[in-house]
Amino acid sequence: MANFGLKSLRIIKPRDVWPDVREPTPAFRQIPEKDPQKNHDKTPFDRIWAASSGAYDVIIQAQIYETIDEAISDLHDVYAATARNRELQLPVFSPHALTEHVVPCVASGQKIGYLFGAERAGLETRDIALCKAIVTIPVDPEFYSLNLSQAVGILAYEWRCHAQEKPAQQFFSHHQDPATQDEVMGFFHHLEKELDEGGFFHPEHKRAHMVRNIRVLFNRANLTPQEVRTLRGMIVALSKGRRQKSV
Amino acid sequence: MANFGLKSLRIIKPRDVWPDVREPTPAFRQIPEKDPQKNHDKTPFDRIWAASSGAYDVIIQAQIYETIDEAISDLHDVYAATARNRELQLPVFSPHALTEHVVPCVASGQKIGYLFGAERAGLETRDIALCKAIVTIPVDPEFYSLNLSQAVGILAYEWRCHAQEKPAQQFFSHHQDPATQDEVMGFFHHLEKELDEGGFFHPEHKRAHMVRNIRVLFNRANLTPQEVRTLRGMIVALSKGRRQKSV
Repeated sequence: MANFGLKSLRIIKPRDVWPDVREPTPAFRQIPEKDPQKNHDKTPFDRIWAASSGAYDVIIQAQIYETIDEAISDLHDVYAATARNRELQLPVFSPHALTEHVVPCVASGQKIGYLFGAERAGLETRDIALCKAIVTIPVDPEFYSLNLSQAVGILAYEWRCHAQEKPAQQFFSHHQDPATQDEVMGFFHHLEKELDEGGFFHPEHKRAHMVRNIRVLFNRANLTPQEVRTLRGMIVALSKGRRQKSV
Repeated sequence: MANFGLKSLRIIKPRDVWPDVREPTPAFRQIPEKDPQKNHDKTPFDRIWAASSGAYDVIIQAQIYETIDEAISDLHDVYAATARNRELQLPVFSPHALTEHVVPCVASGQKIGYLFGAERAGLETRDIALCKAIVTIPVDPEFYSLNLSQAVGILAYEWRCHAQEKPAQQFFSHHQDPATQDEVMGFFHHLEKELDEGGFFHPEHKRAHMVRNIRVLFNRANLTPQEVRTLRGMIVALSKGRRQKSV
């Protein structure tokens, strides 16, 4: 990612220990001068440090989160890199098409995230349901086994090609940025709580599936902050009436 | 490379032992059924096998060469992936532009090679002087440390995007394929031998540098087989006269 000018790394539940950047340890301060491989092959973090090939800024500034909800809360849009059909009604972009879409958003000040994770264990369908769309790298259907670092490399490469070559496209002045994930998540929790109380999620074992599909539906709508407020107002209006009835 | 439909791998002077595909050993026959990582971490080849993540066809069919001259002799054009300025007068393509140029060549039956090697120890300027052009991945000038596998991944990805999306462009019927590297190399050796005999390469320590620049000059011309024959005829004509004089 640093090769292509991307610096902001967020890690959700790292498998190995990752020192807290807010409490720097000596390992952070001591930047190896010559051969990182030689001096730093002891702890998982030392290995990360050596493998970064000098991209220390990315490592030091990486932010660690316990949940995806926290990790994406301040972002406007998140796109999931996955090749598997997750049975979600989300648009699927090619890397090229996604980047063309995303570059002007970033140029206009939006915060965009790409979500990566191991396909078999890591990236859950529930996580992808929080995204605006899916990006799929066009691999050979007869053989594919693209590792995560290659996927990151290709999307970062496309990012740099587009961000450099094309003039930043401007939105019309009446355009509103999409709501942040924090706002959208607040709406989801509000909606789901009220639906729970109303006994909507029935039977219980289908709850996760139903929640996912509802979230995807709203994500596709690319809600603005104003629309989120409107929707929450609608929930309040609807549930208030219901409570009065049930009293 | 297999992820993006590329299967033909040629390896020049592999660092580790690589079994000769013309004499298959039991290691080739015995395709691991479940966990390649588990059963195959003994020899360098076992590690290659495991790291291929199932791309066994590429590994088994890989061709091993002692020299780059042998490796590229049957190819029409070779392009070197390098980010370093080699002080060669060769055109430099972006991955996108090179692929747009190369896809119709391959569609019309030409054999094209991409040359990769470690920048510091592996890819020599002498090797690059055999290529038609250079391809450089647009990395951040403030930080770059792209490993070879990422470079292969990005060029293979661009290949697949273009090969799939664009209709194969046809050459006009009078178009001639470029000469193969074998034909061009025969011309180079012929020319350089005659120049040697004529005392052209003087002083001796500048010989390699002068040879390189001459080769690059002719490579840029994108010679056809007919032109190679014409040039060799010219060398014969010139050197014959010289010999008669020197007798």
